[in-house]
Amino acid sequence: MRSTPLPIFGSRLTLGLARNRIEEAGLLGRCEFVPVADGDRVDIGPFGVEFVPVTHSVPHAHAIAVHTTQGVVLHSGDYKLDLTPVDDRRCDLARLGQIAATEGVRVLLADSTNAEEPGFAPSETSVGQVLHNLFSEHRDRRIITASFASHLHRIQQIADAAVASGRKVATLGLSMRKNVRLGRDLGVVDIPESSLIDIEEIDRYRPEEICVISTGSQGEPMSALALLARGENRFVTVDERDTVILSSHAIPGNESNVNRVIDGLLRRGARVVHSGVADVHATGHAQADDIKTYLSIVEPEWYVPIHGEYRHLVANAALGRRMGVASDQVMLCEDGDVIVIDDDGLRLGDRVPAGYVYVDGIIGDVGTGVIRDRRVLAEEGVVVVVVTVDVQSAEIVTGPEIITRGWVYAPEAEDLLDEACDTVAEAVQRALGGGVRDVEALERDVRRAAGKFVNERTRRRPMIVPVVMET
Amino acid sequence: MRSTPLPIFGSRLTLGLARNRIEEAGLLGRCEFVPVADGDRVDIGPFGVEFVPVTHSVPHAHAIAVHTTQGVVLHSGDYKLDLTPVDDRRCDLARLGQIAATEGVRVLLADSTNAEEPGFAPSETSVGQVLHNLFSEHRDRRIITASFASHLHRIQQIADAAVASGRKVATLGLSMRKNVRLGRDLGVVDIPESSLIDIEEIDRYRPEEICVISTGSQGEPMSALALLARGENRFVTVDERDTVILSSHAIPGNESNVNRVIDGLLRRGARVVHSGVADVHATGHAQADDIKTYLSIVEPEWYVPIHGEYRHLVANAALGRRMGVASDQVMLCEDGDVIVIDDDGLRLGDRVPAGYVYVDGIIGDVGTGVIRDRRVLAEEGVVVVVVTVDVQSAEIVTGPEIITRGWVYAPEAEDLLDEACDTVAEAVQRALGGGVRDVEALERDVRRAAGKFVNERTRRRPMIVPVVMET
Repeated sequence: MRSTPLPIFGSRLTLGLARNRIEEAGLLGRCEFVPVADGDRVDIGPFGVEFVPVTHSVPHAHAIAVHTTQGVVLHSGDYKLDLTPVDDRRCDLARLGQIAATEGVRVLLADSTNAEEPGFAPSETSVGQVLHNLFSEHRDRRIITASFASHLHRIQQIADAAVASGRKVATLGLSMRKNVRLGRDLGVVDIPESSLIDIEEIDRYRPEEICVISTGSQGEPMSALALLARGENRFVTVDERDTVILSSHAIPGNESNVNRVIDGLLRRGARVVHSGVADVHATGHAQADDIKTYLSIVEPEWYVPIHGEYRHLVANAALGRRMGVASDQVMLCEDGDVIVIDDDGLRLGDRVPAGYVYVDGIIGDVGTGVIRDRRVLAEEGVVVVVVTVDVQSAEIVTGPEIITRGWVYAPEAEDLLDEACDTVAEAVQRALGGGVRDVEALERDVRRAAGKFVNERTRRRPMIVPVVMET
Repeated sequence: MRSTPLPIFGSRLTLGLARNRIEEAGLLGRCEFVPVADGDRVDIGPFGVEFVPVTHSVPHAHAIAVHTTQGVVLHSGDYKLDLTPVDDRRCDLARLGQIAATEGVRVLLADSTNAEEPGFAPSETSVGQVLHNLFSEHRDRRIITASFASHLHRIQQIADAAVASGRKVATLGLSMRKNVRLGRDLGVVDIPESSLIDIEEIDRYRPEEICVISTGSQGEPMSALALLARGENRFVTVDERDTVILSSHAIPGNESNVNRVIDGLLRRGARVVHSGVADVHATGHAQADDIKTYLSIVEPEWYVPIHGEYRHLVANAALGRRMGVASDQVMLCEDGDVIVIDDDGLRLGDRVPAGYVYVDGIIGDVGTGVIRDRRVLAEEGVVVVVVTVDVQSAEIVTGPEIITRGWVYAPEAEDLLDEACDTVAEAVQRALGGGVRDVEALERDVRRAAGKFVNERTRRRPMIVPVVMET
C-alpha cells in the first residue's frame, strides 16, 4: 500500500468530482486538494505548471503546460475544440499559441480517442437542439435520460429541455445525485430549485410532467438504468408510457452491456432513443481535424499520442507526421513507458510497472495469480480430489473423494467419478507402496493421475486441486 | 441426445457448408442431404416447400415459401435486395409477387438484423471496387485479408482484386481452405489454378506478389488472424511490410476481440484497413428500405420479425406496421415461442425449450448448473474446506484444511486462513458435541461457518466447498 500523502491540483469542479471517488475509497485523509483557476500557474517541485482552459464533456477541464528547463511539456488533457460550448468557456487557443510562439512546445502529449474519426467533432450545444425536439415529440410521455454522471454539460442541456417543457427533474443513481448537487453548489449546473424533485416524489406527478436523469449510460450491470431495464429499481418502474433517451455512445467493450439494457427497456414496452437512431450524443474528444488544428497552433517539436487504444495512438501519430512533426520525433508509447528528456531530445527510459489493479471486497489488489486461477475456473471448472493417508502403515484411510464444481453435471457423471476415484486410489497406493511418504509428492501423484484421467475421458482440463491429509 | 435421423434440404453449396460442420461434430451418419435447385418445390410432410432465390453474403441463399392448408408461410431467410450481386443471381422478386398475388402470404417471417439502419443496403459489388483501389494503393506490400469463410462473394472479389494485380492467393485457416475448395468444386468461386498456392509456399514469393485470405474477421481468439496478431501463426509472420484488410464488420459482442486483433497487428507494424476507415464491407442483410420494398411486394397478412436482437425485432415490427400490416397482426416473438395458425388467425401456443447448448470437450451439453458454477468461480474463486471426523468418538481426526483457488493471494492470507481453520474446527466440534453425526449436516455447518468468516473478513463470497470425510 502506497503511503505518500498526495496533493491534488485541479479546478474546484474536478476536485469535487475526485473527492467523491476518493471518499468512497476511504482515502480522504491522505490527500490534499489544491484548487486552481483558469490560467493559474503553480510551482510544483522544479516545474511551473500552468492550467490552460479547454473544452470537454466535463466542464472546467484544463490542458497542463509544464514549464521545465527542457522547455514546455504540454499535456492536452481530454479535450475537443468546441467553439460554442454550453458554458461559453472556450479553449484558450490564444494562450496555447502564445506559449508556442514565445517558448515553443518541446513535446505535446495529446488525446487520441477520436483520431480515426474524420472531420471536426460537433459542438456539445448541437445536442441541446436535438433534445429539445425529442422532448417536444414525446411531450405526452415520461422521459428518462441516461448519460455519464460527470457530463455536466449534457445534464444541463437535458435539464434545460425538461424545464422548458414544464417537467420536474429528478436524478437517479448515487453519482448523478452527488454530481448534480456539486455542480449546483459550484454554479456550474443551473436547475431552478422549483424544478428539482426527489426521485421518491415522481409518482405524485403525471408521467408527462417528469424527467428522470439517470446514470448507467454504459449499461453497467449494477447501474440505475440496468436495474430499470431488469425491473429491479425500487423508485421507478418502466412501462409503455416511458421514453428512454440514452444520451451517450457505448465505449469500446461496453456494446454488449448497452445492447442488453436497450433490449430490456424495449421488452418493458418503453420507446428507446439512442445514438444509433438520433443525434443525442456528441463526443467530448477531438476528431482528426480538431487534432490537426491543435497541432497547427501548438507546433510541437516532439509528439506523443496518448489516451486511446493502440489503433488510436497509431492514427494520431499519423496526424502528427501529417502536420509536420518529424517522423522520428513522433513517439508511440504504451502504459508503463518512461520518456527521458534531455539536451539530445527525447528517448525511452526504463519501464515502470503499470496496469490495472483489481480490487475485490476489502482485500485490495487481487493479483495476477488469483485472476489467472479465476480464468481457468471460469473456463473449465474445478475438480477437488481428497484423500487421507496413514503414512506409517502406508494405507489410504479415507477417500479418495472427488468433488467437482463447474466441470460436469454430477448425476450424469457418477460412473465417471467412481472410475476416477479408482484411478486415483491406485496411483496413491502405488506411490505409498513405492515408499513415497511426503504429502506434497503424493499430491503431485494425485494431480497427475486425476488430470490424465479427466482429460482422456472428457477432453477437458479443469483445475485439479489435490488434497492429501495425514492422520 | 436426440436420435431422429435428419433430412436436410438446401442448395448444393449450403449443404456443402453444413456438411463440413456436421462432419466436425461427428454426426454425418445421422443426416440425409437433399439438394434442391432454385425454384424447386418439395413435398415435406403435409407441406409444399418452395425454394425462392434471394441474395445474401453466402451465395445460393433461399427464401422458403411453405404452402399449407392455412396459406403460405414465407420465411425470408437471411437476405438483402442486392440488385447487382457478384454472381448475377438476383432475388426472384417476380415469384414472390406472384405468390402474393395468387395465393397471398398468410404470414411473413423476416430478417430484422438491419431494421434500425435507414436506406438501402449497398450492393456487394460496391466492395469490389474499393478492394481494387486498395490493392492498387498498397501494390508494393503483402496483403492479408480477413472475412467470414462462408462469405464466398467477398472471397471471390478479394481473389479477383488479387489476381488482377498479379498476386498469388493463399488461404489461411481451416474453414477458409475448406470453403474455397467447396466453392471451386461447385463452380461458385472462380480462382484460376495458376493463381492459387498453398500457404506454406508464400515465402517463395516477394511480399507484393502475395494475397493471404484468412479467417478470423470477428477477432475470435483462436482464429488464424488472432494468431497472426499475437505472432503465433506458424505459416505467416506479420511485419511492417504487410497491409491487413478486415473486410468485415464486428458483430455486436465481438467488438473487443476485433479491437484486440487490430491493436496486435498494428503493434507488429502492419497497416490495418477496417470498415471504420474504408468501405471494405457491405452488409448481407436488408436495411429499412429493403425491408419496406420486400413488404410492399409480399404484402403479408401477418408479420413476424425474426433474426436480430430484441431492438431489431422492435424496429422491424415498426416497419411492418408502417407498410400496412395491422398492429395486432405484427407478432413480436422470442426464441422458444410457438405460433399456432388456424382459421381464426395466428396466436401464441405453449413455449418450447430453446437457447444455447454449451458443448465442452466430448461430454456434450454442459448444462446451466455447471455454467452457473463457473460464473461464481470466475467472479469469486473457490475455497475448499476439508475435515476428517471420527463419528464414533465425535472427534476431528485431520484438518480442517483450507485450500483456495482464485480467492486471495495465499502467502498474504496465511493468518486469515489459520483463523478460518480455527473457526471451522470450532463449528465442527460444536456440532459433534451436539450429537450431529450425519456427514451432510456437518458439511452444512462447515459451509456456514466458513462462509460467514470469509464474508465478514474479506467482503467476498467465493464458492465454499465443504468436504467432510469419515474414518
